[in-house]
Amino acid sequence: MKGVILTINPSATIVDISHDIAPENIRQAAFVLASAVEYFPTTAIHVVVVDPGVGSARRPIAIRAGESSFVGPDNGVLSQVIRDMPSTSGGHIRAVHLNKPEYWLPHVSNTFHGRDIFAPCAAHLSLGVPIEALGESVQDLIQFPTQQAARWVQDEIVGMVIHIDRFGNVVTNIGEELFQERDRAQIVVQARGAKVRGIKNAYAAVERGQLLALIGSNGRLELAIREGSAAVRLGMSEGDTVHVSLDID
Amino acid sequence: MKGVILTINPSATIVDISHDIAPENIRQAAFVLASAVEYFPTTAIHVVVVDPGVGSARRPIAIRAGESSFVGPDNGVLSQVIRDMPSTSGGHIRAVHLNKPEYWLPHVSNTFHGRDIFAPCAAHLSLGVPIEALGESVQDLIQFPTQQAARWVQDEIVGMVIHIDRFGNVVTNIGEELFQERDRAQIVVQARGAKVRGIKNAYAAVERGQLLALIGSNGRLELAIREGSAAVRLGMSEGDTVHVSLDID
Amino acid sequence: MKGVILTINPSATIVDISHDIAPENIRQAAFVLASAVEYFPTTAIHVVVVDPGVGSARRPIAIRAGESSFVGPDNGVLSQVIRDMPSTSGGHIRAVHLNKPEYWLPHVSNTFHGRDIFAPCAAHLSLGVPIEALGESVQDLIQFPTQQAARWVQDEIVGMVIHIDRFGNVVTNIGEELFQERDRAQIVVQARGAKVRGIKNAYAAVERGQLLALIGSNGRLELAIREGSAAVRLGMSEGDTVHVSLDID
Repeated sequence: MKGVILTINPSATIVDISHDIAPENIRQAAFVLASAVEYFPTTAIHVVVVDPGVGSARRPIAIRAGESSFVGPDNGVLSQVIRDMPSTSGGHIRAVHLNKPEYWLPHVSNTFHGRDIFAPCAAHLSLGVPIEALGESVQDLIQFPTQQAARWVQDEIVGMVIHIDRFGNVVTNIGEELFQERDRAQIVVQARGAKVRGIKNAYAAVERGQLLALIGSNGRLELAIREGSAAVRLGMSEGDTVHVSLDID
Repeated sequence: MKGVILTINPSATIVDISHDIAPENIRQAAFVLASAVEYFPTTAIHVVVVDPGVGSARRPIAIRAGESSFVGPDNGVLSQVIRDMPSTSGGHIRAVHLNKPEYWLPHVSNTFHGRDIFAPCAAHLSLGVPIEALGESVQDLIQFPTQQAARWVQDEIVGMVIHIDRFGNVVTNIGEELFQERDRAQIVVQARGAKVRGIKNAYAAVERGQLLALIGSNGRLELAIREGSAAVRLGMSEGDTVHVSLDID
Repeated sequence: MKGVILTINPSATIVDISHDIAPENIRQAAFVLASAVEYFPTTAIHVVVVDPGVGSARRPIAIRAGESSFVGPDNGVLSQVIRDMPSTSGGHIRAVHLNKPEYWLPHVSNTFHGRDIFAPCAAHLSLGVPIEALGESVQDLIQFPTQQAARWVQDEIVGMVIHIDRFGNVVTNIGEELFQERDRAQIVVQARGAKVRGIKNAYAAVERGQLLALIGSNGRLELAIREGSAAVRLGMSEGDTVHVSLDID
């Protein structure tokens, strides 16, 4: 893909976000992308190739939101970013179906559209080709069912694990805004039989090997073990439930 | 190596093709290189450091074919590319033995010629140094025994596995041109006791977890499992035999 | 981090040195950094994010030595480079505590200072901001206890393993200068019950699968198995002892 991009635009700057997405894991890819986008230049073109449906009827698409662009399969992997877009782009979003072969490689395989369609289209975008030239406008993009936002119900939150990072930290869908009017020392987090009291400020707030809850670098509640793997110790994986409650004793 | 290249040519654009070649696996490196070259700019300089014989009598070499250059050990890793070159370069190939120390790092180790010889020579090439300046011309490059091209014998092909990719797809030496005048629905592919009928167009043509045969992104017959690993399920690895026959019932 | 850097300095050239440091392994990171620095342009800015104490009282720091800069946590990871600096920089070293938030990202997490502090400070350095602007001068940087340099005591060296590379080669703290006035054929290296005679020039000096001692690409005595893993075969890891003696029979 990098060779294809540099053949079309030799002065492109290419950055790898991750090569550690589990095969076919569209939700994980969506999470990692959404976590990275805000830290990139607003004019960046983001290309995603987690594409288990390559060769099927799923459409190759490009999306423009404000100055940013996104290129990838229409399989939901861009849905979290799309959902977050209005706030950053003023709601002005255009999406097209990449159906103009003149912007693809001459020979398109059925198994690697990242190389044959996404990369050349992204390279043409980087040269200033308007997104409308790459294909027909579409309105009906695939989106994951909007994930129920975690929230307080009386004095309890029932959240879920949405990501395990490479250190084994267990990231939840529970955002830090839910704790703004609470005393963090009174929060109790429970998962898989384990229970920790208090939300700490940093891994270093506990001893090595000790389990803690904290707000991770994505602004979400996270279970972690200092210099260890919470996912391994607790046997947790994506989709598992995490309970938050208050202990006011 | 990147530091060495950028010290000599600060405006070089450097792209990693793969860090996943199994240690010492020259054939796998040759396959991955040959699969990538056609997608890079024609003026690219390709450097290969799969070099189990570093420090022995094996020569460091550079090859120029058309506008493209290749730098690496003379151990056969460049042989597949060399074999494919005439068609793209008009047959005009020059090879030199990298034996001019003025283009190397001042201190050359016996264990890492990638850093000490290949990287600086490649950087000098990128600055316009002619390949002839880097060493004496050589004609007797090491080549792997030319692999018997797979072909139809009566109504059967006996092919072999030449690569397992990181998804566990099993790539063979059977090129798609062998199926141009055949009915793909009638093709039967057998390997390790498994049998699939028909060559599909894409992974998505079958259900999740189902085995299929298709033409992969390298234009070769491939055994795959949708969202799974065919190599693990079938217990296959490089060098294994794959049978293709016709079922005209 | 790359997005942050390119947002501040779009023309920065970014090179990854390693993503294979074991989690929290500060000493391994220090070794890999010290091995790489001399091969980079002298004006390079090196950023290190092996930072188990992120969020604690450990300071974020930047160091200038000659034309080179280093940005990372004050946890000792830069200590080996610092110790090696006087020879290359004429002893002129300045260190600052990164405590000027105007050079950070607007929102700083407690868990990822690499992204929120180190990357933006490094990017500002690359634009010519003087290191003194980034924070107050510090003199009391954390350093590992200076490792006892390996040396001959009578006719014996007692050294230790400081690194296992990804091929399983066992790298020691025994520098090649210790063998300059010795007959390398008479050297005997012993570790974990294994014994090899002679220091070879290259992996290729022995048959496949055979254990050897040689001077590795870092200029240090190394135990290796040609096309195999010495660390696995001998069961060795960092901190293990290696004995060198003479056999003058």
